[in-house]
Amino acid sequence: MDLTKIENPYFLKNLNNKELKQLAKEIRSFLIESISQTGGHLSSNLGIVELSIALHYVFNAPQDKIFFDVGHQSYVHKILTGRAKDFTSLRQLNGLSGYQKRNESAFDCFEGGHSSTTISAALGMAIARDLRNEDYNIIPVIGDGALINGVSFEALNNLGHLQKKVIIILNDNGMSISKNTGAINSFLDSLRISMSYNKTKQNYKELLQKNKVGQVTYKISKAIKEGIKHKMIDNMFTELNLDYIGPLDGHDFKDLKRGLEKAKNSTKPIVVHVITKKGKGYKFAEEDMDGKWHGVGKFDIKTGEIYSNTKDNEINFSKLIANEIYNKMRENDNIVTITPAMISGSKLNYIFKDFPNRSFDVGIAESHAAMMAAGLALNGMHPFLSVYSTFSQRCYDQFNHDISRMDLPVVIGLDRSGIVGEDGATHHGVFDIALFRNLPNFTITAPGTTEEVKYLVNEAFTINHPYIIRYSRDAALIENNNIKYEYGKWINLISNKDNIIISYGVHSKKIMKIINENNYNIGLIHALYIKPLDYSLLDYLFKNNIKINIYEPDIKGGGFGSSILEYANNKKYDTNLIKLTAIDDIFISSGKTSDLYDYYGFNYEDYIKNCLKRGL
Amino acid sequence: MDLTKIENPYFLKNLNNKELKQLAKEIRSFLIESISQTGGHLSSNLGIVELSIALHYVFNAPQDKIFFDVGHQSYVHKILTGRAKDFTSLRQLNGLSGYQKRNESAFDCFEGGHSSTTISAALGMAIARDLRNEDYNIIPVIGDGALINGVSFEALNNLGHLQKKVIIILNDNGMSISKNTGAINSFLDSLRISMSYNKTKQNYKELLQKNKVGQVTYKISKAIKEGIKHKMIDNMFTELNLDYIGPLDGHDFKDLKRGLEKAKNSTKPIVVHVITKKGKGYKFAEEDMDGKWHGVGKFDIKTGEIYSNTKDNEINFSKLIANEIYNKMRENDNIVTITPAMISGSKLNYIFKDFPNRSFDVGIAESHAAMMAAGLALNGMHPFLSVYSTFSQRCYDQFNHDISRMDLPVVIGLDRSGIVGEDGATHHGVFDIALFRNLPNFTITAPGTTEEVKYLVNEAFTINHPYIIRYSRDAALIENNNIKYEYGKWINLISNKDNIIISYGVHSKKIMKIINENNYNIGLIHALYIKPLDYSLLDYLFKNNIKINIYEPDIKGGGFGSSILEYANNKKYDTNLIKLTAIDDIFISSGKTSDLYDYYGFNYEDYIKNCLKRGL
Repeated sequence: MDLTKIENPYFLKNLNNKELKQLAKEIRSFLIESISQTGGHLSSNLGIVELSIALHYVFNAPQDKIFFDVGHQSYVHKILTGRAKDFTSLRQLNGLSGYQKRNESAFDCFEGGHSSTTISAALGMAIARDLRNEDYNIIPVIGDGALINGVSFEALNNLGHLQKKVIIILNDNGMSISKNTGAINSFLDSLRISMSYNKTKQNYKELLQKNKVGQVTYKISKAIKEGIKHKMIDNMFTELNLDYIGPLDGHDFKDLKRGLEKAKNSTKPIVVHVITKKGKGYKFAEEDMDGKWHGVGKFDIKTGEIYSNTKDNEINFSKLIANEIYNKMRENDNIVTITPAMISGSKLNYIFKDFPNRSFDVGIAESHAAMMAAGLALNGMHPFLSVYSTFSQRCYDQFNHDISRMDLPVVIGLDRSGIVGEDGATHHGVFDIALFRNLPNFTITAPGTTEEVKYLVNEAFTINHPYIIRYSRDAALIENNNIKYEYGKWINLISNKDNIIISYGVHSKKIMKIINENNYNIGLIHALYIKPLDYSLLDYLFKNNIKINIYEPDIKGGGFGSSILEYANNKKYDTNLIKLTAIDDIFISSGKTSDLYDYYGFNYEDYIKNCLKRGL
Repeated sequence: MDLTKIENPYFLKNLNNKELKQLAKEIRSFLIESISQTGGHLSSNLGIVELSIALHYVFNAPQDKIFFDVGHQSYVHKILTGRAKDFTSLRQLNGLSGYQKRNESAFDCFEGGHSSTTISAALGMAIARDLRNEDYNIIPVIGDGALINGVSFEALNNLGHLQKKVIIILNDNGMSISKNTGAINSFLDSLRISMSYNKTKQNYKELLQKNKVGQVTYKISKAIKEGIKHKMIDNMFTELNLDYIGPLDGHDFKDLKRGLEKAKNSTKPIVVHVITKKGKGYKFAEEDMDGKWHGVGKFDIKTGEIYSNTKDNEINFSKLIANEIYNKMRENDNIVTITPAMISGSKLNYIFKDFPNRSFDVGIAESHAAMMAAGLALNGMHPFLSVYSTFSQRCYDQFNHDISRMDLPVVIGLDRSGIVGEDGATHHGVFDIALFRNLPNFTITAPGTTEEVKYLVNEAFTINHPYIIRYSRDAALIENNNIKYEYGKWINLISNKDNIIISYGVHSKKIMKIINENNYNIGLIHALYIKPLDYSLLDYLFKNNIKINIYEPDIKGGGFGSSILEYANNKKYDTNLIKLTAIDDIFISSGKTSDLYDYYGFNYEDYIKNCLKRGL
């Protein structure tokens, strides 16, 4: 069928299993074709095709609330709710979001992005439903990776107590972004093996019940099997006072429908455990154990080649940091690397391979990751915590109350800081400067080149205090230079007596290139350190009445420019020398990074031209 | 014995159980006597006397690392490690900390404050120990309330996977600050009931094994009992791949020693489940179900009267907010109150009593509390989330990614904002302005009087966006006035053409009183709104060259004053009109609030005098 003609999921009710299977096949082809052109989240959507169809078959959205933890696995849901035609604009500025969006469809009742929010939200929604005497189902779909996050657990504990009817769909593929580890995963493993047993049993029952002798045989063998069944059913979920169904075969419509119908009729909170295969139907994605097909750029369907857009004089920033940390770990036995489920995203594969005893993937558990780093530092180690800027928002209390207050030597790599592009509002790492610069004892740095990273990674492990290296999703510039870096010192890239730009991270060299190419009459300073500021350089600028333009594509409120204003005010300088350009109290949407820069006023060329006007 | 003569816990090894019991008795008397004079945490320390003694008896601190989650229950540990003599200065400026402090004793290897950090820290410490080939025990002591927090769970999941030897002492009194609820609590309940069974069994065994017939009888009955035992042992902890011992009677030295010795010899991570009675040995504290004896002020030992220092023209701020929320809940069925275990601390008792269907104590689970509020708001309710400022640091991601980004109508009461006094560095609520003012769609308010609270609580529920009311641990001023409040408008308390002070919260009226009493020539503006700023009033001040002194006893970096600097800079005003006095990049220690104000430069009188100098 023509998927772009689908307006809503109501048609599903009239399809039989064979037709549903055919639909699933067509959706898979559509997904592979479409994402190969636009990039996006592939594996998780391929894995959830039948489950998404079955959910819309059994339940009645939008009355029933079907929503997805994180939400990057909602593409099939989007197709079934009338959005296939929009996939060409997937994740682009003003295009189809890569996540659920309430303003995109009446079928999107929730918005995720960060993981493990849905069970809490579902409980809140269920309390609201019951207080308002409304009647519908609430069906959060959550992966096994997101289940181990503490917020999910807090919610399960509360749900088991309050006994609100929520149907939790545990979409279990044994993977989150990387392969899951942890005790919960072992526990799920023990449930997983029983799936084939369950299915065999069902077939056996159907076979035997066809005649009288068979029925007697079945009853006897059933009694024996109850022992095994009991062991399976009395599990962690039931101990949390939640009903449990499963595991179901997530690619078998018969199994899915039966399980979901049963859950629908339950009156208690219930976990429906569904086993799916990530990447199902696309060989390269099915075989992927590292998560490189989790979120991909454009790719060649036939060869499985994922296109890169890193230029020759650049290196992927995560890769660069990982390389430097790798080198430091060879020198220094006290360094331990910790990641919350981002081995692949942060390119830590070689570290984990070559330093298996000093590398820890704690799963999607950012708060624990930071707190474990504190514990390591307390006992003499010097941990490196690698965490995406946006997810570090879940570490604020550990950074403040534990690492900053106890002044512990933890090196924090904030990956994907700044505007990240297509992942959009939930993933831009634009809050971290405002968030962390209020922390005593912290150093915050923002490199843009290979040489800077080398220097800073080295410095980070010689300093016995908390130390952040924030870096971009954009590539780092490869360079060899003779600059002698020094703690707290900014880099004067282009001198000018009247008018200068201050920026940081990858932006400085990009701005420099344009200034140099055009011979613009403006200076440029690279703020390699966000905290502390380079006070003596600032003193010089203010004392010489040099106009200062701050280019800050991060949140303005309490950010980097704000800290310069505080310093200038304290020293009684004229702050009208400062012109601050930053993100002013809004969320940035999704789109190509360059499109976002243009749209939100951070186009380098335009910006420089604006600054030049001040020089006149 | 004279407890103040104790230098270290080594003497314990030579005491028999009878002598240990006598010591426990003396320690209890000392605690009650001492805390009645200074205030402090009473109930939790009375509950942990035997357990603390047994830990120091069985283990060898400081080689073995004994540390306490939160840490307010470490008083007995402090006594046993040579600090009894310092209890007169408990929680005072430069006095004995109410928590563990590394710089206070070699026996304090860790510092808590916020709950649920110890299991993660212990795992980090254990990894460090093993990598360094060191040999000692790591023994975090954690309450059942702290166990349900997500960070604890993330750590247990990781510990069960990594199998590092950590001895977790679960100090289970069925209470955290309030009575615990939640599925985990029910699960613990089921273990608790087996304690008496276990003890009976032990006595029975000892009795029977005295002769041959008895031995046979014992063997037969043992086989039957194995069934029950199996059920108990195969529990949530074992499913997380952690060994489990218990439950032990936390007030029986024989039981405690046996259990702890067994744990010491284990090679796996192990949970030692100890049942204790909060408040044990002091009648009023034992009978307390609301938590009012958790942290107390000075009190009369005989009558149990806890002295209050609220003046006649003041009201406890938590009480005031709770009253107003109560009134709103009577009018508006859409309001639901959520607290993470602070029913008593935030004086929500009447709300929970009279609106049982619309009041939710989720336990020590701040992130979930905020996310559940988001879920409620998504389905048409208008939740009130009550959370201490310092603990709201654990909600940042939910406030940002969920509540702010989806622009949800959640009213947040930030209790105990600002400097809180004796609880010290881990509890001052001085970061919330810097933390939350970068959030789009948020309103942040800071009332100081009863009338303001009435107005703001009302306004909060008429505004369909996130709304924070931050309030102090200090009392609110009771007043009747005819001020017509308006959204975003500050209050001009004292006019002056040259020189004014801007403050907020409880500070403004305290400053006003001093100015009026002394007839000082200085103006005063009360910033009832932290965000948005009162732009038109600021325009007036800057355009009229009025000197502006900002009194901000909260963190400076990115705070309130910083936002005024940003605004002034944007409007090209002269920021040298602004003099900003705030907490500059440090943590504030513990002590009486007034002592801390004096010590850190926030003494009202001195501050005003300093400001007056600018007027000359």
